[in-house]
Amino acid sequence: MEPKEQRFRFRRKEESGTTSGLCDNYLQANMITLPKEYAFDFLLFCIRNPRSCPLIDVIENGHVRPQVADADVRTDLPKYRIYKKGKLDGEVLDIVKEWSDDLVTFLIGCSFTFEKALVHAGIRLLHQEQNRVVPMFKTTIPCKKVGIFDGNMVVSMRALTESEIDKAIKITSRFETSHGAPIHIGDPAEIGIADIFKPDYGESINFDIKERIPVFWACGVTPQNVCLNAKPELMISHAPGHMLITDKLEEIN
Amino acid sequence: MEPKEQRFRFRRKEESGTTSGLCDNYLQANMITLPKEYAFDFLLFCIRNPRSCPLIDVIENGHVRPQVADADVRTDLPKYRIYKKGKLDGEVLDIVKEWSDDLVTFLIGCSFTFEKALVHAGIRLLHQEQNRVVPMFKTTIPCKKVGIFDGNMVVSMRALTESEIDKAIKITSRFETSHGAPIHIGDPAEIGIADIFKPDYGESINFDIKERIPVFWACGVTPQNVCLNAKPELMISHAPGHMLITDKLEEIN
Repeated sequence: MEPKEQRFRFRRKEESGTTSGLCDNYLQANMITLPKEYAFDFLLFCIRNPRSCPLIDVIENGHVRPQVADADVRTDLPKYRIYKKGKLDGEVLDIVKEWSDDLVTFLIGCSFTFEKALVHAGIRLLHQEQNRVVPMFKTTIPCKKVGIFDGNMVVSMRALTESEIDKAIKITSRFETSHGAPIHIGDPAEIGIADIFKPDYGESINFDIKERIPVFWACGVTPQNVCLNAKPELMISHAPGHMLITDKLEEIN
Repeated sequence: MEPKEQRFRFRRKEESGTTSGLCDNYLQANMITLPKEYAFDFLLFCIRNPRSCPLIDVIENGHVRPQVADADVRTDLPKYRIYKKGKLDGEVLDIVKEWSDDLVTFLIGCSFTFEKALVHAGIRLLHQEQNRVVPMFKTTIPCKKVGIFDGNMVVSMRALTESEIDKAIKITSRFETSHGAPIHIGDPAEIGIADIFKPDYGESINFDIKERIPVFWACGVTPQNVCLNAKPELMISHAPGHMLITDKLEEIN
């Protein structure tokens, strides 16, 4: 399905699931929406933390259309999260009611963008096979602080066999605006993850830890984690795993 | 002279001239300082206009030290300009008196950075030979507007012989954070310049228009030009040609 058609299905609420595996080859994006008073600090936070927050697009206050997609960010994602003062206030299928002309929206690269290339190279993606949202974890890797935005990186995890890992590094390092190469490979405890089967976001994946090694990529859910500390009055984001599908084809180096 | 020593000479007001030709190989930067209320729009303006405003560093409100130099931006440039509501209010040798914790500072790449490489390749730079500030011109090339920041590009001009131009293109296109390749070559009227001997900033250079062709680069004075339209309550910048010399060596691709 073409991105525009897929987005219309979300807009009409005919679908509201994860976008992993949808619209192959098109760039997918995390969304963060904040009142303008926080916009400078957050934009600088993205610039200073490009691994977790690679900027794809910024939509100024008073606008709803990105440059990367003929879309309305208020309706064209499958699912959104509303945070108030750093607390999750609810999950909704559109944010028309919450919208105001004071809001600035940031689109940030997403690892879903490179999944097609991994599958194409013969790498098995268990979360797709098990039809689950990719598991995501809070870590102890600190971000560079800007203003109120301060906190640790969130990572997405894919469990790969040893022979798949080399290929995965080579492939993903070319996707600079989609988090690039893995940030960590192996022992989850080293980056502060206590239980690989209890993700903080997304869903747990079944795999044999004797056969597969967890591989971690910086994740665009990081700003949602940072927001729990920063406690801005209002923050709206995509629901983890439920991205904006853009009209832009993947860019690889 | 090393950058730090040179900056101390400016700080102690022992020198206040153009930085063209000083501290070879070190990145030089344009400076723009604005109250925080304008900072988001201006940061986005830089991101959307990378040819004229390649970002090198952002110094948040409450801070005076860049990451790229062990410097104090209030004292370590040779000369500053104060703009109030878009009008030049004065030229000063430091901005200690004007400083407040609400100010955000942007450092933007400068074509002085690649001049050493041009001279090294045997290209004559007449403004250095004639000991003048490089001539800069307002053009009719529009920038991408963000909020109140809207206006045309400013360019710096170097008059080269035909055989020098190819070399100059090749060399400067590698300096991405210092404006890169020329934006225009030849007829000044095509980009709205009426008289090549009457620059809007800097000083006029003597050359024979039958022997040399004007070559134009996007210029970090563009934000000062855009400011004349935007009319922020306060804006402080380096005086054209009087840059921050950083501790960072030139980065070339």
